[in-house]
Amino acid sequence: MEWMDGGSITTPEGFLAAGVACGIKASERKDLALIVSELPCVAAATFTTNKVKAAHIIVCRENLRPQKATVRAIVVNSGNANCCTGGQGVEDARRMCEMAAHELSTQRGLNIQPHEVLVASTGVIGVRLPMDKVEQGITMAVAHLSRQGGREAAEAIMTTDTKPKFAAVRLELFGKVIHIGGIAKGAGMIAPNMATMLCFIGTDACIGRKALQSALRYAVERSFNSITVDGDTSTNDTVVLMANWMAGGSEIAEGSDAFLRFREALTSLCQRLAKMIAADGEGATKLVEICVTGAESERDAKAVALTVANSLLVKTALFGNDPNWGRIAAAVGRAPARVKSETLTIRLGEFECFRRGEPVPFDEAAAHEWLKASREITLHIDLGIGAASWTVWTCDLSTEYVRFNAEYTT
Amino acid sequence: MEWMDGGSITTPEGFLAAGVACGIKASERKDLALIVSELPCVAAATFTTNKVKAAHIIVCRENLRPQKATVRAIVVNSGNANCCTGGQGVEDARRMCEMAAHELSTQRGLNIQPHEVLVASTGVIGVRLPMDKVEQGITMAVAHLSRQGGREAAEAIMTTDTKPKFAAVRLELFGKVIHIGGIAKGAGMIAPNMATMLCFIGTDACIGRKALQSALRYAVERSFNSITVDGDTSTNDTVVLMANWMAGGSEIAEGSDAFLRFREALTSLCQRLAKMIAADGEGATKLVEICVTGAESERDAKAVALTVANSLLVKTALFGNDPNWGRIAAAVGRAPARVKSETLTIRLGEFECFRRGEPVPFDEAAAHEWLKASREITLHIDLGIGAASWTVWTCDLSTEYVRFNAEYTT
Repeated sequence: MEWMDGGSITTPEGFLAAGVACGIKASERKDLALIVSELPCVAAATFTTNKVKAAHIIVCRENLRPQKATVRAIVVNSGNANCCTGGQGVEDARRMCEMAAHELSTQRGLNIQPHEVLVASTGVIGVRLPMDKVEQGITMAVAHLSRQGGREAAEAIMTTDTKPKFAAVRLELFGKVIHIGGIAKGAGMIAPNMATMLCFIGTDACIGRKALQSALRYAVERSFNSITVDGDTSTNDTVVLMANWMAGGSEIAEGSDAFLRFREALTSLCQRLAKMIAADGEGATKLVEICVTGAESERDAKAVALTVANSLLVKTALFGNDPNWGRIAAAVGRAPARVKSETLTIRLGEFECFRRGEPVPFDEAAAHEWLKASREITLHIDLGIGAASWTVWTCDLSTEYVRFNAEYTT
Repeated sequence: MEWMDGGSITTPEGFLAAGVACGIKASERKDLALIVSELPCVAAATFTTNKVKAAHIIVCRENLRPQKATVRAIVVNSGNANCCTGGQGVEDARRMCEMAAHELSTQRGLNIQPHEVLVASTGVIGVRLPMDKVEQGITMAVAHLSRQGGREAAEAIMTTDTKPKFAAVRLELFGKVIHIGGIAKGAGMIAPNMATMLCFIGTDACIGRKALQSALRYAVERSFNSITVDGDTSTNDTVVLMANWMAGGSEIAEGSDAFLRFREALTSLCQRLAKMIAADGEGATKLVEICVTGAESERDAKAVALTVANSLLVKTALFGNDPNWGRIAAAVGRAPARVKSETLTIRLGEFECFRRGEPVPFDEAAAHEWLKASREITLHIDLGIGAASWTVWTCDLSTEYVRFNAEYTT
């Protein structure tokens, strides 16, 4: 597996994309993205577990439901979440699919049906989409589609992200080079009214729907489901993976060696995009990796890592470069997992602070300096109970986060 | 039931208290409290559910274990949590009980055994108690014990609290006036390294241990277990209720009318103290009451209320006086409870924003002004599913909270 510099959703064969500004955002920044595959794709997707779901999720599920459903395009707007917009919101999301299918057919001569288009939204909750602007945006985006449009599309799905997020990998399977490339946005649900993690991934690999969904579930669990900025699960979270088979070669059968290599590459790609999201958390000054080992189960390890990652006291201490391991111990203790104080060991980077239930003297001034100098830090938590482990990524919590989320007024 | 102005733990008959400064805190503020009953007490207690527990909790459990255990005194230090201090920490906590029993016997001629003394600590985690200072403090506190010492004791258990917290009620049962009075400290686990909710309650009622524990469990569930500042459960949380029977009259039997009236008064007292804690949350500008109705079960209603209360996005919006109901909807949707968007209704004070799945136009400018002018606000969330309800209290999240918890350096 090899990383491809500047790679994105348009790196795999046959994928086109565009990002345009159509006035949904007051800022005049890009706010509508379109991703299209030249050939029909097998698709897999995961959506938010929030019980209040955005309209686009209802429509995506409808379009993915038929066993033999193929996907040709994804249309995405930023600046408006189309969530808590009632029945009208669902109509608007369906209309976006129809508009995209119509424009792709008339402008590009592609025979695409509305049910072959997926849709996603991110932005303010509870406000209707300005459908006239959306329609203009779709017309423009179809005109701008290109094999180099991945980065523009990554910009058009941003809300309060400070950087576009894109990446691609290549690997050889069955003597053919296959590519997996994606774009992502969001930072947990940290932005003011802008509440979404979105990720769109394309591949030219030959892989069936069931295997694709299985690989995606595995990768998402270890990447996007293992980051947190503020613990607020968005109503709009969406990851879509499309495979158009254009690389050629044999089909990647679930469970085969080729499948495991494909899944590993996909997981690496998702982790890279997920870490970009955590590092770009609103007001963040540090990317924080939390490695939990010695747990009875992966479930326990993940529960401990996420509880520490969401602790305000841990996050504010890290912002202050304070090696305050007592706050980590307290967060570990309240995690919904099997944990014992007597077997617990805590290390901040190279500084061991607590070993199997007893405090360990360490150089606090040096630990403070290390925290101050580091943009990426790792916390090691060994539960001393079993052999399972999990890693989670988060960021620190700064005054800037609060200011940003408080000073915004609807 | 009647509130007693300025009442505290020393309002019930036979309770003495003192609060002194012995140098555990660098600030020279009061840091050691002692509460003593003239007669042996039946006692009930609840402790933190955090699996990393402070040493004092281990010792309290030992002393409360025997079926006929009586309690005569509680010794409490602030400025040091005596948590994550290993085996030595437990020895130190036991030693505090011994010191208190010894001083009360020699200075006051009270025949008190070490196992009749309970102990509690709050403050920095992972540092040994300065036992020489603690010993001096206990000697001083015994000398200062008085029937008016409740307020001083409330001051001595403070860490970053800005106000001492005390209250008392009186009611008539069986023709006798009985009193319930308490002191409390803490604000969730919001303070830098200071991590504890403590509450000590005394009553002169005649009530057995089982009934007392049952009433306390009921009251704590609806008060201290229904507040949150930052979702960080402390390692030291402790509530102790002591009954010395000095009011006279018949014994209050569990399930009787008298019991229900006693329990109601106790619940009101605990709620008043709990609301003082939420309102005094670090950096808080508002006390926020979250009323969830229409839930399938009380468990569901409480889960929804706590999820909203712990949402950083909801808390920062309230700090910014932003009537951003979409963040409330998103938090409701991720709560571990039965929730449907289509039956959900949200009201901010008098402003209805969302009714049974559809957005409702409302005067956002007026809602902003109302938020800005209010020190206490209520959010109403109707799930529209069942008949159960629950209320939770929290505060907003300000830049001051982050600054305070970040700028502190060990």
